Amino acid sequence: MARVSGQLDELGMLTALGAAIRSARQAKELSQEALADAAGIDRSHMGKIERGERNVTILNIARIAKALSSSPSTLLAAPNW
Amino acid sequence: MARVSGQLDELGMLTALGAAIRSARQAKELSQEALADAAGIDRSHMGKIERGERNVTILNIARIAKALSSSPSTLLAAPNW
Repeated sequence: MARVSGQLDELGMLTALGAAIRSARQAKELSQEALADAAGIDRSHMGKIERGERNVTILNIARIAKALSSSPSTLLAAPNW
Repeated sequence: MARVSGQLDELGMLTALGAAIRSARQAKELSQEALADAAGIDRSHMGKIERGERNVTILNIARIAKALSSSPSTLLAAPNW
């Protein structure tokens, strides 16, 4: 897990999660709006999640993962996690 | 991921996450209070998380994972996820 002198690099973790979601979305050639709709998440909220601006709940991560045919573990496997 | 006729079994997922946290805590012979303190989480909130009664944020999962010398991916590797 990303550490900043013994502390969790929480901002870095959220940014890494957002980047992992974005790259999985782009790999499936989905627009951000299409992913938000498929996951049942508000479109502007999805944008903030991808930019690492939200401390996402685990069920929203699961909904996003399902919409991407992925899993929370895979999305959280990014190096910062 | 746990599915209930195509839908995510969200209650089952939270229960599985709580159980994974509990078994990792017990394996380290930590009390629930000690884990809550180490993760910087309110003790009663920790109890609700372990019982699957809370849609936990990813940073709280990361804090709990760190306190357990584990990772969010490991805690989310339970079969229901």
